[in-house]
Amino acid sequence: MKVYGDTLSGNCYKVKLILALLGIEHQWQHVDILNGETQTPEFLAINPNGKVPTVLLDDGRILSESNAILGYVADGTNLIPDDRFLKASVYQWLFFEQYSHEPFIAVRRFIQQYQGMPPQRVEEYHSLQAGGIKALSIMENALKTNDYLVGEKLTIADIALYGYTHVADEGGFNLADYPAIQAWCKRISEQTGYVPMRS
Amino acid sequence: MKVYGDTLSGNCYKVKLILALLGIEHQWQHVDILNGETQTPEFLAINPNGKVPTVLLDDGRILSESNAILGYVADGTNLIPDDRFLKASVYQWLFFEQYSHEPFIAVRRFIQQYQGMPPQRVEEYHSLQAGGIKALSIMENALKTNDYLVGEKLTIADIALYGYTHVADEGGFNLADYPAIQAWCKRISEQTGYVPMRS
Repeated sequence: MKVYGDTLSGNCYKVKLILALLGIEHQWQHVDILNGETQTPEFLAINPNGKVPTVLLDDGRILSESNAILGYVADGTNLIPDDRFLKASVYQWLFFEQYSHEPFIAVRRFIQQYQGMPPQRVEEYHSLQAGGIKALSIMENALKTNDYLVGEKLTIADIALYGYTHVADEGGFNLADYPAIQAWCKRISEQTGYVPMRS
Repeated sequence: MKVYGDTLSGNCYKVKLILALLGIEHQWQHVDILNGETQTPEFLAINPNGKVPTVLLDDGRILSESNAILGYVADGTNLIPDDRFLKASVYQWLFFEQYSHEPFIAVRRFIQQYQGMPPQRVEEYHSLQAGGIKALSIMENALKTNDYLVGEKLTIADIALYGYTHVADEGGFNLADYPAIQAWCKRISEQTGYVPMRS
């Protein structure tokens, strides 16, 4: 498997992390987001949506969308439950992540950390605070009584949410306000095979 | 199964449509979005994210996120492929829908059709045009050479994308510019068991 990705992106890191946890050999092809490399004709031929991560499987087929890639890689492993309801609950968290978490927490982090807070995005940055707090609060409540988001063990729901949550401080969110999330982050970072984001 | 939903929402309609196509008995509990009924303490106790659709299963368990519900209902039916890659491709489209399609096409439709284009959202409305056109163009290209989005038959990828695509004109997109999408919409509307959005 060849992964097109940029490790500054939490979406790409999710894929790096699951491959590390499962010990799956792969080739990492750096695609520099800030340098416009996701928008070149060559890359758009691989993924017309111009986004990383995108993976090229050994048989030549291509898959994109970080959480769909997680589902593909996890298939048949203990990172996704067999049970119909628990599996759907994992996907519930994955869709929550892409719709109600990433557009607030990842976008604020991008504006603050990678764009250096340009004046024309300051208003947008502030407007995204409430949504991020709401997403973190929903996670905090879920993790108060559970070690992991679904069932009693690590699944791709945890991997997907961990991607941007554990660096939410880089988008101006204070994780000290969320002790259950902090304990969960520590639990994930102690998994066998774990790799940090920038490695 | 009890579905909490509002048929003005394409996300809710997806659930209505799959249940109709599969002939699954259910109870529909109307939750009026425009009237704030997704934000009441009673509803937030059912779904802390305050969104419809949310389903209450017969065993009392709750599931939210329209596309996770589609996956749950489709499990074991011919609306989701068994093949690992094709199944992941279906989820690729589902995540595309929630991240790269709905936030543009559904939000413009909501501003135009349900809010009556309030002056304070006109700039946002215009800013969402390019993203909607990009999403429709990606779908058009995929459907030029395929009758359905994944494989050769109807899957939940089609049901999910159909939700807001077939009413994209209500958000100021001209579907006449996308003949392959129009033919695909017709193909879906001719499925046995099909129900229209407002029914």
